[in-house]
Amino acid sequence: MMFWTLLGILCVSTSVVISNPYRVNPGPLVTATRGEPWPQPYQTIKHDGFLILRPSVFQILITGETCDILEDAVQRYTAIVTLEASVASRELRSAPRAHARQYSSFAGNLASLNVRLINPCEDMPHLNMNESYVLDVRNTTEAGSLMAKSIWGILRGLETFTHLLSRSGDGPNLALKCQTIIDKPLLQHRGLLLDTSRHYLPISDILRTLDAMSYNKMNVFHWHITDDQSFPYQSTRFPELSAKGAFHPTLTYTRENVQKIIEYARYRGIRVIPEFDTPGHTRSWGESHPDLLTPCYNDSTGAPDGTLGPLDPTESKLYPFIRELFAEIGVTFPERYIHLGGDEVPFDCWASNPRIRQYMHEHHMNDSYEQLEAEYIQNLLNITRDLNTTSIVWQEVFDNGVHLSPETVVHVWTGNQKSKLAAVTKAGFHVLLSACWYLDHLQNGGDWRKFYACDPLAFPSTVQQRELVLGGEACMWGEVVDSTNVHPRIWPRASAAAERLWSHERNPSVTYAAQRLEEHACRMNRRGIPAQPPNGPGFCIQ
Amino acid sequence: MMFWTLLGILCVSTSVVISNPYRVNPGPLVTATRGEPWPQPYQTIKHDGFLILRPSVFQILITGETCDILEDAVQRYTAIVTLEASVASRELRSAPRAHARQYSSFAGNLASLNVRLINPCEDMPHLNMNESYVLDVRNTTEAGSLMAKSIWGILRGLETFTHLLSRSGDGPNLALKCQTIIDKPLLQHRGLLLDTSRHYLPISDILRTLDAMSYNKMNVFHWHITDDQSFPYQSTRFPELSAKGAFHPTLTYTRENVQKIIEYARYRGIRVIPEFDTPGHTRSWGESHPDLLTPCYNDSTGAPDGTLGPLDPTESKLYPFIRELFAEIGVTFPERYIHLGGDEVPFDCWASNPRIRQYMHEHHMNDSYEQLEAEYIQNLLNITRDLNTTSIVWQEVFDNGVHLSPETVVHVWTGNQKSKLAAVTKAGFHVLLSACWYLDHLQNGGDWRKFYACDPLAFPSTVQQRELVLGGEACMWGEVVDSTNVHPRIWPRASAAAERLWSHERNPSVTYAAQRLEEHACRMNRRGIPAQPPNGPGFCIQ
Repeated sequence: MMFWTLLGILCVSTSVVISNPYRVNPGPLVTATRGEPWPQPYQTIKHDGFLILRPSVFQILITGETCDILEDAVQRYTAIVTLEASVASRELRSAPRAHARQYSSFAGNLASLNVRLINPCEDMPHLNMNESYVLDVRNTTEAGSLMAKSIWGILRGLETFTHLLSRSGDGPNLALKCQTIIDKPLLQHRGLLLDTSRHYLPISDILRTLDAMSYNKMNVFHWHITDDQSFPYQSTRFPELSAKGAFHPTLTYTRENVQKIIEYARYRGIRVIPEFDTPGHTRSWGESHPDLLTPCYNDSTGAPDGTLGPLDPTESKLYPFIRELFAEIGVTFPERYIHLGGDEVPFDCWASNPRIRQYMHEHHMNDSYEQLEAEYIQNLLNITRDLNTTSIVWQEVFDNGVHLSPETVVHVWTGNQKSKLAAVTKAGFHVLLSACWYLDHLQNGGDWRKFYACDPLAFPSTVQQRELVLGGEACMWGEVVDSTNVHPRIWPRASAAAERLWSHERNPSVTYAAQRLEEHACRMNRRGIPAQPPNGPGFCIQ
Repeated sequence: MMFWTLLGILCVSTSVVISNPYRVNPGPLVTATRGEPWPQPYQTIKHDGFLILRPSVFQILITGETCDILEDAVQRYTAIVTLEASVASRELRSAPRAHARQYSSFAGNLASLNVRLINPCEDMPHLNMNESYVLDVRNTTEAGSLMAKSIWGILRGLETFTHLLSRSGDGPNLALKCQTIIDKPLLQHRGLLLDTSRHYLPISDILRTLDAMSYNKMNVFHWHITDDQSFPYQSTRFPELSAKGAFHPTLTYTRENVQKIIEYARYRGIRVIPEFDTPGHTRSWGESHPDLLTPCYNDSTGAPDGTLGPLDPTESKLYPFIRELFAEIGVTFPERYIHLGGDEVPFDCWASNPRIRQYMHEHHMNDSYEQLEAEYIQNLLNITRDLNTTSIVWQEVFDNGVHLSPETVVHVWTGNQKSKLAAVTKAGFHVLLSACWYLDHLQNGGDWRKFYACDPLAFPSTVQQRELVLGGEACMWGEVVDSTNVHPRIWPRASAAAERLWSHERNPSVTYAAQRLEEHACRMNRRGIPAQPPNGPGFCIQ
C-alpha cells in the first residue's frame, strides 16, 4: 500500500469519499499528518523547503543560561531524536532508500538546535511561569534556534521541536519542514487529575503519566491521592492513616516516592498539586481514626447504624488533627496551591446524628447542613491560609456560600458549565474547568471529539471574567481504571483537552485535529505511552 | 485494613449496605472470593477443611498416558503454582506469619497432584473433543487426583486446579479447600474473535490472548485475519496480497507466524479457525488484485466513480483465484472448520455496475442482489467442500436463502437473537451465537454484567433445536483497539461469555459472579494478562 510513501510530508493525500457504511477505503480511516505538533502552536510561519536532520551528527547545543532542568531536558530530547531516527529506519525496511538531498524541496541540513535560555532557571514550576518560546528552523543556517525567557518555555519548545520530525525516506535521516513557531499557552493551568484511591497506581505509572503530560504540554498533575476507598499516602506524622487505610501495606506512597514524583515533574515543568478531599470522601481515614468521622444513626431505631459518614465538625480532636496533617502536606508538597476537595458531602449522616443536630441547634443553623459544611470549610481555609498555601475547592464550596478569600480557586466539575463559570467569575473568583473533560465518561471507541468540542472560554462573560479562568483539568477518576487500562483510557483523549487549554484557536478544525491526533497517538506510542487509536482503523510503526 | 486477613477463604465477609451514593465503605467495592474457579464447574462437592500446598515440595505427577501437550502443560501449571506462591509471600509482607497447620480446619498437606490421562492424546483439538475431567483434592491422602479420558479434559482440570489455590497466611504456602469437582462444558464451541485487519496485532499479543483464553477455558480462536482495511496474511501462493494490502510491509503474518500461533493454541486445547471474509470486506485485496473487485459507477454520470466494491462474481478470474487461495488456507490451517464470512455485502456497488446488471439480466435474477450473493456463496461453498473443510458463515448467508449443506454452521451476530437462533435451528442448522457478546460495545466501566446476562440456550426451541447450538464467541472487532488497549478491553469482559458457554447453571447469581470475577481478574493480572477492574474500586497484589 501507499501509506508510507517517501517524503510524504510534502504530499497531499486525496481520497474518495464513500457514503455506504459497508464500503470503505483500504488503509487507515484517518491519514496521519507528518511532522505537525500537538497542541497547535500560537503562530506558525511555514517557509519553503525541508531540512534533513542526520541523527549521527545532530546535537542540541546550550548557548544561553543553563541548569539541571535544561541539561536533563537536552538528554531526554536527544534520546527522543535518536528514537525517531531508529523508527524511521525501521519504517523503511524493504523499501528502496531515497536520497533526500536530491529532492527539489531539499533546503539543507540541520546540524544542531541552538537552545538559548535568556533568564536564569527558576527552581520550581508555578502558576504564572512563562512558557512562551520561539523556535526557528530554516534554510539560512545549519543551526536551528530555540529561544525563551524562561526554562519552562525552553521545555515546551524542545517538545515542539521533536514533533516536527518525520521520516525522510532516507534511512534514519529525519525531515523537518522549514518554519518559524512563536508559541505561548492560552491558559496557564493545564492539568490532569489522577485518582490513586479507588485503585492504587504504582509509581512507574505516575511517572509515565508525567512523561505523557509533557508530550502534551500539560503542566499540572492534580493528585487526588486519598478518598473513601483507601488512603495510600504515608503520612510521617500519622503513619496509621495508610497503615490501616491503604488497600494493602504495600500499596502506599512513601515520602521518598512523593519526592521522586515531585522531582520528576519539576524536570518537566509540571506542578504537583495534591488533593486531600474533606469533609466527605474520607471514609478510609476512619480505619485508623474512627473518632474523626460522624457515626450515622438509624432513623427508626435512633441508634448508630454502624456506618461512618463525613468528618465530624463537632469533634474536638478534628481541627488539631487537620492542622497537623495539612502542616505536613504543606511541607511535603512545595507547590503553593493545595486542593481541599469539598465535593459531594453526604448530609444525611450528619442529619441522623444527635450530637450534630444538637450542635446546629446551639449555633442557630436551622437544619442548614450547607452552613455546617461552610463552617468546616471556613475553618479549614483558615488553617491552610496560615500555612501559606492557596486553596482550590470543588464548586460545591462556592455554591454553598462559604466565604472564600479572594485568591481561592473554584473548580467546576458538574452541572451547567457555562452558567457555573459565569457565576464563579462574576463573583470575582479564579476558576478551573473540568466538567467537559471527564475521562471516565466512555463512549464507543475514539471519543476525543466531545472533549475537543469544549472551549473553556465560551461562557457569557466580560473580558475581566475570562481573565479569571486559570485553565482546566482532564479528570481520570479511578473507579474502573488501574495499571492495566489507565494509560490508553487517558491518551490520546486527554490530548484533546490539552490542545484546547494551550491553543488560541477558538474554532479549530476537527478534521485537521483528527489527522494530527492520529500522528500524535503514534508519537506517544513510540515513546512508551500506550495511547489508544484515536479515530478508527489504522496503524503505528514502532 | 482487614482486606488481607489470614486464611480468609474460611471466613465470610459481612458488610453494611449503604444507600446514599456519596457514602461508601472503605476498601474494594466487591470483595473477591478466595480460591473459586472461573468458569464455574459443572459440579463441586466441598469437603471439610483445607489442605496446604508447600511449593518447595509440591509436584504435578503424570500417572497415566502422556504426550508433548501434557508435558508442556505440567511445566506451565507448575510455573503458575510457583507464581501463586511467590505472590502469596509478597501479599503477606509486613504481616505476621500464621502457622496454617495449627488451624482447626487444617486437613493435611497436598504433596502432589496425580494426573491420570486415560486415553492416548489426540493430536489436534477439534469440535467434539472431550473436555470433561474429575478433580479430587481431599484429606484422605497427600496426593490430589486429576483424571480425564482425554488430554483436553486434563488441560481444563489443571486450569481449575490452579484456581483453587489461595494464600494461606503461612508464607509461600498455599491453601486449598478440600473438594471434588466433576466438570464438563455446557457447549463445545467457546470462542473469541480477534480482528487483525482494522489494526494489526503483534504475534506476542495473539499468544497472550491464547494464554488468557486458556485461563477462561475458551477453546476457539476465531481469527478474523483480513478485511477491507488491510490484508496482513502472507499468502505463499499470492504474496502480493499482503505485500500491497498490509498496512505496512512489516505488519504481516508469515507462514511461520501462523504455524507458531496454531501450535501454541494446540498446546492449550484451542482451535484456530481463520476467517477470510468474502464477497464483501475485501477492499484490501484490491490493492494487488483490483480486477477481482467490482468497479462502482456513478449513477448520474454513468462512469466508474473510482471506488471498488465487493468481489465481482461475473469476473472470470475470480473463482480460479478463490480456489487457489482457499486451497492454501486449507493446508495452512489444520482446523476442519473455516469461516467464510458473508456479512454486510454492499449491494449498491453491484447495482451501479453495468456488467453486473447485464449478467443478472441474462441469468434472470430480477434485480435480486441476494440471489447474486447466494450464487457466489454457493460457488464458494462448493469450493471449500471440495477441500474437505466445513464452513461457518455469518447469518446473512442464511437469511438470504443460500442453499447450505447440512453441516454448515450459521453464526448469529445481529438482530433479534432469540428469533434468529430459533429460525436457524428450526431449519436444522448448527448455530453459533455472538450477538450478545460484542466487546466493542462499551459502557462506562465494568460492564461485564450485560455479557453475563446472555444465556445462549434461552430461545423458543425444542430439545433438538438446542442441541444444534454449538456455542458462541465473544467478538473483539478491531476498529478502535490495538496493542495498547486490546487486552483490558477483552478481559475480564469476555470471561462473562466464557462462563455462560461453559457452565451449566442457567440462572447464575450475578452477585456471586461479581465476587468470583474480582478474584479471577487479579488471577489473570498475576499471570501477565492486563485484565481491567471488573467492578469498581479494589486492588490486586502481584
